[in-house]
Parts: sequence; structure tokens; C-alpha cells
Amino acid sequence: MPAPIEFWFEFGSNYSYLALMRIEEEARRAQVPLHWKPFLLGPILRELGWQSSPFVDQKEKGDYVWRDMARRAARYGLPFRRPSDFPRRAVLPMRVALLGSAQPWMGEFCRRVMLRNWAQDAAIDNDDCVLAALAGLVADPSAILFQARQEPARDALRAQTAEARRLGIFGAPTFMVAGEMFWGDDRLEDALDHARTLG
Amino acid sequence: MPAPIEFWFEFGSNYSYLALMRIEEEARRAQVPLHWKPFLLGPILRELGWQSSPFVDQKEKGDYVWRDMARRAARYGLPFRRPSDFPRRAVLPMRVALLGSAQPWMGEFCRRVMLRNWAQDAAIDNDDCVLAALAGLVADPSAILFQARQEPARDALRAQTAEARRLGIFGAPTFMVAGEMFWGDDRLEDALDHARTLG
Repeated sequence: MPAPIEFWFEFGSNYSYLALMRIEEEARRAQVPLHWKPFLLGPILRELGWQSSPFVDQKEKGDYVWRDMARRAARYGLPFRRPSDFPRRAVLPMRVALLGSAQPWMGEFCRRVMLRNWAQDAAIDNDDCVLAALAGLVADPSAILFQARQEPARDALRAQTAEARRLGIFGAPTFMVAGEMFWGDDRLEDALDHARTLG
Repeated sequence: MPAPIEFWFEFGSNYSYLALMRIEEEARRAQVPLHWKPFLLGPILRELGWQSSPFVDQKEKGDYVWRDMARRAARYGLPFRRPSDFPRRAVLPMRVALLGSAQPWMGEFCRRVMLRNWAQDAAIDNDDCVLAALAGLVADPSAILFQARQEPARDALRAQTAEARRLGIFGAPTFMVAGEMFWGDDRLEDALDHARTLG
């Protein structure tokens, strides 16, 4: 049995989009158990001294990143439109994702939120987004939305973000395999390979 | 005929090492003409506001990068030892590389300098390194060393670095294919694919 892969991601992170759209299928193919780990990237970046995303703070890299994103999305066969708002706030759907981390609807819910941000250029930090992304996946979307607005769900996301910081996570997506860190969508294959070698 | 790939690199850059050791063979296999573009990364990073390498200035990312380097080198079958001095000064061998950019000895010369830095943990910004790396490749290594110490060679490297800045290059390695930028060792395959599609 391979080691599990932990997938640390955030809906506002563009390279998290590329990894999230692929990971459930890739992990299944590699027979590697997948553990979803939504966390807030913003507070971590601010602690590391960034004002916003490094892709905003560093103009040259930022210009480049959108070309790279378009090419990589095309390579994966994923739709992509550069968002008019970046990095987009994602706190509410992130709380829902944390509630859903071990649920069968997790993957599809997350892909729908991501598509809204990265293909439809629509805001995601609102009730409409969450309800639409849960529609058909759970019996009562509004019950989950209600739960996501309560203090325990807020605390849980804060705690998960603190855990990311403790692990030394400095960007997203990050994959953790048996304590080994892999950073960036382009390291997903390395991380899965590593999980297999531990099997 | 595919478009050429320009390979912008610096001996002091760790991900340039991974790309440089592979690129001649990979470009040949892809039948993509290779143009060597040595430039100094330090002045560019300073202009962008960094004190040293981003892998030194950002502790968390720096810690990660050496793990990633070891794993990536192993994946490529390349030797790797984390240098005791990073980023290592490389001005003299960079000037030689610029002199050799269109010479048949370029690839082997560069690989030898890189191995000295990244596998043997030895200084490279000195006469010994240059003479050893040229040995057997050219009739008179000391003549090239002499030439590298003259003002035209210094000016040429400054001009090449200014050209990198003009192109918007913010890191190394960077591949340019028909004006399209690809940044990082892990985009070499994308860059070669792009060069082929233009063929």
C-alpha cells in the first residue's frame, strides 16, 4: 500500500487550480490515497513578508505566470481565463472544503469552485457559489452552508492554516508524502512517485 | 525546421545546473537548434529587489529547494551535492561561456563548470576552474582565459545581461522560443514542444 499524499491547496491559488483538477484521477491511477488539505494561503504569505500574492508583488514574474498558466492549462486540456480579480478571496468555500475533506463530494465540489474562479472569472467567496457547487452532490446544501458559517468551521480553517505554517508550507499547491514536501503543480508526479516507492 | 530555443542560464543557479546538464541532448533529440545565452543573474535579482538569491532571502523556500534539487538530480541521474557556498560567484567562467557560445566545445565546457559547482562543491570563479574545464577541448586554454579577462569580454557579458533584463527575464534557467518565455528547468520540455510546433 503506497503512502498517502496530502494535497494542501487554496481556491485562490492559480497553480492549485491546475493540480486540483487533476489530482483525484492521478492519485486513483497511481493507487495513492488522497488526503485533501484546504488551507488559507494569504495569512501565510503575509507572515512571510508578502503584501499580496508573489505574482502581484513581483511584476516580472506575475507577467510570466499568466502565460505559463495558459500554456499549462492547454497542455492538461483544462479551460482557463485569467481572472479579473487575483488573488480572489475564498474563505467561505475553503471552510466548506474543510468540512467536506473526507466526504465523497469533496473532489467534485472543489473542481466546481475552481472552474468558477479560473474558467468563468466569477467571485467564489459567497453563498451562491457554495450552493451552486454543492447542488446535486449533497441532500441539503444550505445545511452545509449554515455549518460553514459557524464558529467551529472558522476555527477549523484557522487551525488547518496554522498546521500548514508548522509544516513549513510557503506556497500552494503543496504535496506532503510521509513528511516529504513537494511544492507546485509540476511536482504532483514526483510526489505520487514518491508515495508509490514507499508502498 | 523547428524554431531555435535560447537557453538563458548562469553557473551559480541551481536549477540552471539541472537544465544545462540535459539540454544539449534533449534539444538534439527534439531536433531543435540550441542557442546558448549565458548571463549574470545577480545584477538582475538585485534590480528586482533581492539581496541575494531568492532561495537565501526566503528561508522556507530555501530549505525546500535543496530537497527538491536532490530529488530532481536523482530523477535525472545527475550527481548533486549542496554547495557550501551559494550562490557561487561565476563571473570569469560566464565570460568564457559567452566567448564559447557558438563553439563546438561550449556544451562540454559548461557541464564541467557546473559539475565543479554542484557535484564537487568547488569554487568556479578562478583560472584553475576555467583551464581545467577547457582542457582537451581547445588547443590553447590559456589564450581563451586571457581573452576572457579583456575589456571586450567583460562588456559582452554586461550587454548580454542587459539583454536578459530587456526580455523580462527574472530568473534562471529561462528558455525563449520565438519570443515566448519558459522559466525553470521543469519547463524545458514545454519549451522544446513549443519550438517543434512552430517547425
